[in-house]
Amino acid sequence: MTRERLYLFDTTLRDGALTTGVDFSLDDKMNIALMLDRLGVDYVEGGYPGANPLDTEFFTKKRTKRAKFCAFGMTKRAGRSIGNDPGVAGLLASDTDAIVYVAKSWDYHVHVALGCTLEENLECIAESVRAAIDSGREAMVDLEHFFDGYKANPDYALACAATTIRSGARWAVMCDTNGGTLPHEIERIVAEVARVIPGDRLAIHAHNDTGNAVANSLAAIRAGARQVQGTLNGLGERCGNANLVTLIPTLALKDEFAKAFEIGVTPEALKEITLVSRAFDELLNRSPNRHAPYVGASAFATKAGIHASALAKDPRTYEHVTPDSVGNKRAILVSDQAGRSNLLSELARLGVECDPADPRLNRLLETVKERESQGFAYEGADASFELLARAALGGVPDFFEVESFHVGVERKVVAPGVTYSASQAVVKIRIGDDGFISAAEGNGPVNALDLALRKDLGVYQKHIENLVLRDYRVRVFQGGTDAVTRVLIEFGDGDRDTWSTVGVSGNVIDASFQALVEGIVYRLVKLGVPAQ
Amino acid sequence: MTRERLYLFDTTLRDGALTTGVDFSLDDKMNIALMLDRLGVDYVEGGYPGANPLDTEFFTKKRTKRAKFCAFGMTKRAGRSIGNDPGVAGLLASDTDAIVYVAKSWDYHVHVALGCTLEENLECIAESVRAAIDSGREAMVDLEHFFDGYKANPDYALACAATTIRSGARWAVMCDTNGGTLPHEIERIVAEVARVIPGDRLAIHAHNDTGNAVANSLAAIRAGARQVQGTLNGLGERCGNANLVTLIPTLALKDEFAKAFEIGVTPEALKEITLVSRAFDELLNRSPNRHAPYVGASAFATKAGIHASALAKDPRTYEHVTPDSVGNKRAILVSDQAGRSNLLSELARLGVECDPADPRLNRLLETVKERESQGFAYEGADASFELLARAALGGVPDFFEVESFHVGVERKVVAPGVTYSASQAVVKIRIGDDGFISAAEGNGPVNALDLALRKDLGVYQKHIENLVLRDYRVRVFQGGTDAVTRVLIEFGDGDRDTWSTVGVSGNVIDASFQALVEGIVYRLVKLGVPAQ
Repeated sequence: MTRERLYLFDTTLRDGALTTGVDFSLDDKMNIALMLDRLGVDYVEGGYPGANPLDTEFFTKKRTKRAKFCAFGMTKRAGRSIGNDPGVAGLLASDTDAIVYVAKSWDYHVHVALGCTLEENLECIAESVRAAIDSGREAMVDLEHFFDGYKANPDYALACAATTIRSGARWAVMCDTNGGTLPHEIERIVAEVARVIPGDRLAIHAHNDTGNAVANSLAAIRAGARQVQGTLNGLGERCGNANLVTLIPTLALKDEFAKAFEIGVTPEALKEITLVSRAFDELLNRSPNRHAPYVGASAFATKAGIHASALAKDPRTYEHVTPDSVGNKRAILVSDQAGRSNLLSELARLGVECDPADPRLNRLLETVKERESQGFAYEGADASFELLARAALGGVPDFFEVESFHVGVERKVVAPGVTYSASQAVVKIRIGDDGFISAAEGNGPVNALDLALRKDLGVYQKHIENLVLRDYRVRVFQGGTDAVTRVLIEFGDGDRDTWSTVGVSGNVIDASFQALVEGIVYRLVKLGVPAQ
Repeated sequence: MTRERLYLFDTTLRDGALTTGVDFSLDDKMNIALMLDRLGVDYVEGGYPGANPLDTEFFTKKRTKRAKFCAFGMTKRAGRSIGNDPGVAGLLASDTDAIVYVAKSWDYHVHVALGCTLEENLECIAESVRAAIDSGREAMVDLEHFFDGYKANPDYALACAATTIRSGARWAVMCDTNGGTLPHEIERIVAEVARVIPGDRLAIHAHNDTGNAVANSLAAIRAGARQVQGTLNGLGERCGNANLVTLIPTLALKDEFAKAFEIGVTPEALKEITLVSRAFDELLNRSPNRHAPYVGASAFATKAGIHASALAKDPRTYEHVTPDSVGNKRAILVSDQAGRSNLLSELARLGVECDPADPRLNRLLETVKERESQGFAYEGADASFELLARAALGGVPDFFEVESFHVGVERKVVAPGVTYSASQAVVKIRIGDDGFISAAEGNGPVNALDLALRKDLGVYQKHIENLVLRDYRVRVFQGGTDAVTRVLIEFGDGDRDTWSTVGVSGNVIDASFQALVEGIVYRLVKLGVPAQ
C-alpha cells in the first residue's frame, strides 16, 4: 500500500525565536538549520529578513542542503503596489527556496489591525503569492487566527485559504495563533476546510496554550492536513509551538500514522532524535526536560516496584515504543548487560578499543554512574568521557601535574565614576622534575586562568599553540549560589577539530579549571604526544 | 440547563511520587493534601499504606477536609482468602473515605505477571471491592493497561470493568498505563465501553508518553467518562500523568466543557491555580516551567512587536482566556523585536506610573535597546527592568555605594592526594558617611561575594535578613572565555515574593555582583525604605 506524503515544517528559527529568554546568534542559526536538515524535515523557516540585521545576514545564503529554506514576512500592505513594498522586497531579495507570508484571516483583525477592507486583504494575499511564484519560489501563507476566524466568519476564513491556493501557493497554513483551540474543534474545522481545499494543500500550525499542541496537530492530520509545523523541543512564544521532537516519533512509530504516511525522517535519523533534542537544549544552555516524551532521560525509566518483575520478563509490555527506536535508553537497567552494551557501543563510537569481556568495563560503568550522580554529564562532553574511559582501560599519560592555582577578581571605584577592574591568575604546574609558574591577566577569572595555564606548558607548549576556546557554558543545579556548578567547554584547533570537556564543582572557577585541563590533556592524547 | 457533575481525582501523592527524583516527606504529603483540598478536587489519593512506614503513618488519619481521601493498593491475591491478605488488610485499616484497588485488565498480564486464570482475576476484583464496601467505604478499581488490554482482548477488559461496577464499586478507572494510546483511540474505546457501562461510573487515567495526556483525558470525557485523574504540574513516572493544572482551567473556562460540566473548583479557587502550581514547584525545589499552559510566567507573554500593539488595542483577540481567570499576569516582553507599545504596557503591568507622552520614555527605550545589544535580557529580570525604568523616570534612591570588592579563589595540592581549596571575598560599601567592610568565605566565589555583601548593610540590614537566592543562571555569548557573560539571579523573601535581576559583563564575577546588588536595591525600593 502506498503511503501518502506528510510534510514536516520547522519554525524553530522563526516562531521559536520568540521564546522568552531565547536569543540565537548567527552561528546558532546556522547550526540549527543543519541539525534540522540532517534530521530530515522538509522545510526550515529561518526568520524574518529585514526584521533585524542578524536575520538579514542569515538570508544572504541558503542555509540548508536538502530541506527547503524559507523566509517569513508579511503580505504586501494594502494601498501600496507590490513593487513598492519594502517587506516583500526583502523577502524576494533573500536566498531561499520558499516564501512564507503571514496574513490575517479573521475578519475582525482585518478591520482592527490592518484597517483595510476584507477584499483588499484578499488582494494583498493574491498579489504577494504571485510575486513569490514569479520569482521562481514556492509560496505559502500563514493564515493567522485561522480557527478563531473560522468560528467568527467561516466564509471569510475559507476565502483567505482559497485565495492562497488559487493564487498558486503550495500551502495554506491554518494557524491556531492564540493556541486556545481544542482538538475536537481542530478536527471538525479542518475536515470542513478539506471539503473545499484539498488536504494536500493544507498545513497545521498549533500552539500549546491548552497543552494540546501535539494533539491538535495529530487531529488536523487525521482530518486531512498534510503538512505539520512545529519546533524543536516545543520552543515558541508563550507556551510554545507543537513539539516536533514529540510528533515525529508518533508519526513514524504509531501504526495509524506510520502505515498511512511517509515522512522525510528515516528510521536511522529517528534514532538520532534524542541526541538532536539534547544538543538543542545544550545550545540553548538549558537543562533537558527529563520527562519529555520519547527523548527525556526518564521517558523509559520505571520506579514502580510492582512493574519491575514484569519489566524484566518482557519490557515491551511496559513500553509503548522501544527506547532504541528514538535513540533513548531504558533507564532502569534490566540487566547489567544493557548498561554494558550501551557502554560498549559508546566506546566503539569513540574508537576506544576494548575487549567486551574486560572486567575493567564494570568499574568504568560504576565510575560513570557515580560521576553522573555528582552532576557530570558526558553527553555533551565526549572528550572528558574518552579520557575517563582511557584512564580506566589503559591509562592516560601523566603529562603534567597542577600544583596550585589562584585567581583574584577585583573591582574598585578609584575616582568618582571611574572604576578599576582586574582579574589575575597564577597557575603552578610540574612536568617531571621541572616546575613552571605562570601568571596572566584576563577580562574575567576563567579567561585569566586559561591564559595562565596555557602560557608555558614546557615541552607540550608547541602542541597547544593553536588551541582555541570556542564555547563556554555554565549550568547551576539545585538553585542558589551554593549549588553544584557544571561547566562545559568546547575547544577547537583553529581548523576543523573540536572537542568538549566537562567540569563539576560547587565552585564555578574550579569546575572551569577542570574542564580547561581536560581539554589540553585530551589534545595531547589525540596527538599521541608522549609524557615527559 | 443543568450541567453534569465531572469529578477530579488527584494522584500526585501516589503516582506522582513515582517521579524520578521526587521524595515526599510526611509534612510534604500533608501540605499537598490540604493544597488539593482547597483547590477543590474531589478525590485525593494519598499513597500505598503498607508500602513503606511513611505511607502507613500518613494513613493513620484522614488528611483532607472536603475531598475524599483515598488509599491505593492491590486487589487480593488469587488463592488466598480476603481475610488473609495483608495488603487488603492494610487498606481496610487506613483512615480513608475510599479505597482504590489496582487490577490487571490485559489478559496477557494476568497470565504473565499474576500467573492465575482470567476468571480468578475477576473474582479477586469482585471480592476486594465488596470488602471495601462492607467496611463502609467507596471503592474504585484502576484497570491497569486497560487500553492495550482492550485492543488485545476487548471482552476481557470489558469484563474487568463490568465486574468492578457490578460488585458495587463507584468507579472503573481506565488506565493508559504505558501512556502510548493516542487521543482518537481513547475516544473510540471509551465510547465503546460507555455503551456497556454508564459513563458516570467511568474514570480516565492518562500518561504523557506521547505528549497527549491532557488530550487523552479530554477525549475520554467527550466519549463519556465522568471522572478524570491527574497530578499537580503533571508529575508522574516517566513522562508524567495528565496535568490537572492544565486540565482544570480548560474544563472550567472552555465553553464546550464549562457549559456541559460542573466541577468542584470554583471560579475563586481557579484564580489560585497559578499560585498552587508555583507553590508545588517550590515544595519540590524546582524552577517552575515558564511555558506551562495557563500558569507559566510566559503563558501570557508576547515578544512579537506586531502582536503587542494589537494586544494593547484589545487583549482578548490575542489571549484565549484572560490571565486573571487563572491568577496569572499578562507579560509583554521588552525586547529588540518590540517597541514603545510594549514598553508602556510593561510599565503599566509593573505599576510604574508614567505619562505616555513623557519624553523620557524614548530615552528609556533607547537605553533598553542599547543594554539588550550589550547582552542584557530583561524578559527574565523584571526587577532589573523596573529599576532601570524607575531610574529613568523618576529616580531610585542611592541606598549605598559599593566602593570595591575583591574575590580570591585558590586551590592547591598540600600533600599527595590532598587538596586545599578556598573562596574568599571582601566587599567595601559606603552608606552616607559610614564605611562598611565585610569579608566572607563561600563554597565558590559568587557565594562568598553574596555572603560578604549581605553581612552588614548597616541600617538596611534588617530589611534583607530573610532574602534568599533561589536560582542562579549563567549564559555566555559569542563563545570562548573572553566573551560576554549574562547572569540571572532569582531572589525570594522566604515567603511568596520572588524577583529576578540580570547582570552582564565580560567577567562572570562582575556580572554576578551586579545582579546581587540589584536584587537588594529592588527589595529596598519595594519596601519603600528611605535612603540614608
